[in-house]
Amino acid sequence: MPANRLGDQTFVFKSQPRIIGGYTVVGPDEGKGPLSEYFDMVINDYMHGETIAERAERSFLKDAISGLFGNLRLTAQDIDLYIGGDLLNQIVSTAFNVRDFGFPYIGLYNACATFGEALVVGSMVVDGGYGDTVMIGVSSHYQTAERQFRYPIEVNNQRKETNQYTVSGAGAAVISHGELGPRITMATIGSIADYGLKDANDMGCAMAPAAAATLKQHFDDTSQKSSDYDLILTGDLSTYGSQALARIALEKYGIELGDNYKDGGCMMFNSDQNAKAGGSGCACSATVTLGHVVKEMAKGTYKRVLVVPTGALHSQLSIQQGDSIPCIAHAVALEA
Amino acid sequence: MPANRLGDQTFVFKSQPRIIGGYTVVGPDEGKGPLSEYFDMVINDYMHGETIAERAERSFLKDAISGLFGNLRLTAQDIDLYIGGDLLNQIVSTAFNVRDFGFPYIGLYNACATFGEALVVGSMVVDGGYGDTVMIGVSSHYQTAERQFRYPIEVNNQRKETNQYTVSGAGAAVISHGELGPRITMATIGSIADYGLKDANDMGCAMAPAAAATLKQHFDDTSQKSSDYDLILTGDLSTYGSQALARIALEKYGIELGDNYKDGGCMMFNSDQNAKAGGSGCACSATVTLGHVVKEMAKGTYKRVLVVPTGALHSQLSIQQGDSIPCIAHAVALEA
Repeated sequence: MPANRLGDQTFVFKSQPRIIGGYTVVGPDEGKGPLSEYFDMVINDYMHGETIAERAERSFLKDAISGLFGNLRLTAQDIDLYIGGDLLNQIVSTAFNVRDFGFPYIGLYNACATFGEALVVGSMVVDGGYGDTVMIGVSSHYQTAERQFRYPIEVNNQRKETNQYTVSGAGAAVISHGELGPRITMATIGSIADYGLKDANDMGCAMAPAAAATLKQHFDDTSQKSSDYDLILTGDLSTYGSQALARIALEKYGIELGDNYKDGGCMMFNSDQNAKAGGSGCACSATVTLGHVVKEMAKGTYKRVLVVPTGALHSQLSIQQGDSIPCIAHAVALEA
Repeated sequence: MPANRLGDQTFVFKSQPRIIGGYTVVGPDEGKGPLSEYFDMVINDYMHGETIAERAERSFLKDAISGLFGNLRLTAQDIDLYIGGDLLNQIVSTAFNVRDFGFPYIGLYNACATFGEALVVGSMVVDGGYGDTVMIGVSSHYQTAERQFRYPIEVNNQRKETNQYTVSGAGAAVISHGELGPRITMATIGSIADYGLKDANDMGCAMAPAAAATLKQHFDDTSQKSSDYDLILTGDLSTYGSQALARIALEKYGIELGDNYKDGGCMMFNSDQNAKAGGSGCACSATVTLGHVVKEMAKGTYKRVLVVPTGALHSQLSIQQGDSIPCIAHAVALEA
């Protein structure tokens, strides 16, 4: 067994790097939701002053990076490496920001689970001694995601009950050794689950089996159980997906998810906000984790949290070609 | 300075993990080119028996993974982690293979430089003790890349002299500690270079500045010079891009690239094969490195090689929206 591995799929970060700072930026509806007070910046214009939605998404991410620099009194020269991605084809929201800030760059893609990947790879860089100060970041945007994965919003397609509302926003964090912030102690890398679902309007149910499998793997690898965590937070399964997860976890794996289980997508919007099944997108798990979780850990509300960002790895073309939706989830343990 | 870092952008892999095996699969034209003898498998049908080009690309990657398993007498259960990506939106060629083989999975995207990213992250996992046996893989396909980034081949668009011919193929490798195969000793992570070029039909010249900047960074970080390597191999700059690189390297950075400099794109096709500027794609740097370089290192032809996969990080949409092409290159040092 390698020195820093536990079980089949879990990395252990012995030096326990920390999230020494995070910064979250969201759009107007997200800023009116239940988590409003946790976000660092609410932009009251989805277009962020731009005429092109893709440029607006870039600006959300730019604000998150800039805000984090301000809070931590860092500049781009202090960053050893930037690790991240987004939902857009060729992860261009990330690429253009990395270009403008001048970071050395590793680009990732695991759809909405990209934030989980970034936490894993960023922790490995710091824990392994390959970098001291690593920035991770992700973004998503309702309008850019809709037109890329489903239909442009101008078509005014009727939304289904199972549709989720992609969070417009961005989250950036710095992983480093330090005195403050949650310690990243271990992470379970997911493999792909695919139960044959093909409905691009119901990502939550497609992703639920991946979250269940990763939870099972994490508990097996680390000899823990669900109740060892104060909070288990899936990224963006939303209403139907989180119900499916609870059922699959119990019936297939015997894992009981109690009151300590929450889903970022379910937490993002109020029921009167017409967000249907709830929030989704890279920015969903990132803003809920870096907003709600990290800030509540600082207050002492949570001591041990398992963050489980979930991602649907299809493309618009793979759906059109009749393929089912392969999904993934990574689990990252945070300790106060 | 972190323990395993040199200069601003270079990782050092002190345990020197090795490429213990590689497997390359290419299409018919690639199989008739100058490197023919180096490839492990030539598929004499671009469609690989499929009716959908995207499925054909998946099959190329599947063959590379399966072939590697056969050579190394490994199965999917022996693989601690799969790290890779491809050029298709949402890197679906990778996702569907990872699903079918059942690997734990980290998805990457840096366009044609993804093979470089995979070498870096894979080496870090093994060197850092997070995994013993890591598989990396990438794929690309002429037809899928053309229709995604430019026009479907059915349109029969006239190709320009600067156009490259995306290599149809795949490369997979296993990184581990062992007795045989090139040692991966260090890697310089690139930052993005963008000289404002906007022509999606001339990727080579767009990527050249990124390769030059990464070479400069690598030589500075490691106190080496160009002649310290028997071979410096850029991924897929091809004719015009490799000429641009030589000029930028010399005029901007004072780096002289001599006879030890080669480009994978220039090596892939014969001049009578109508490949215009040369080869490109994730599979270009992967198949030239895992085919030609690794096999010639085993024979003693090269002792120290610097592999520099190059990538253009635009999307079809970013080009249409008037953005220039941000590019990246990572440099990975291999020693016999």
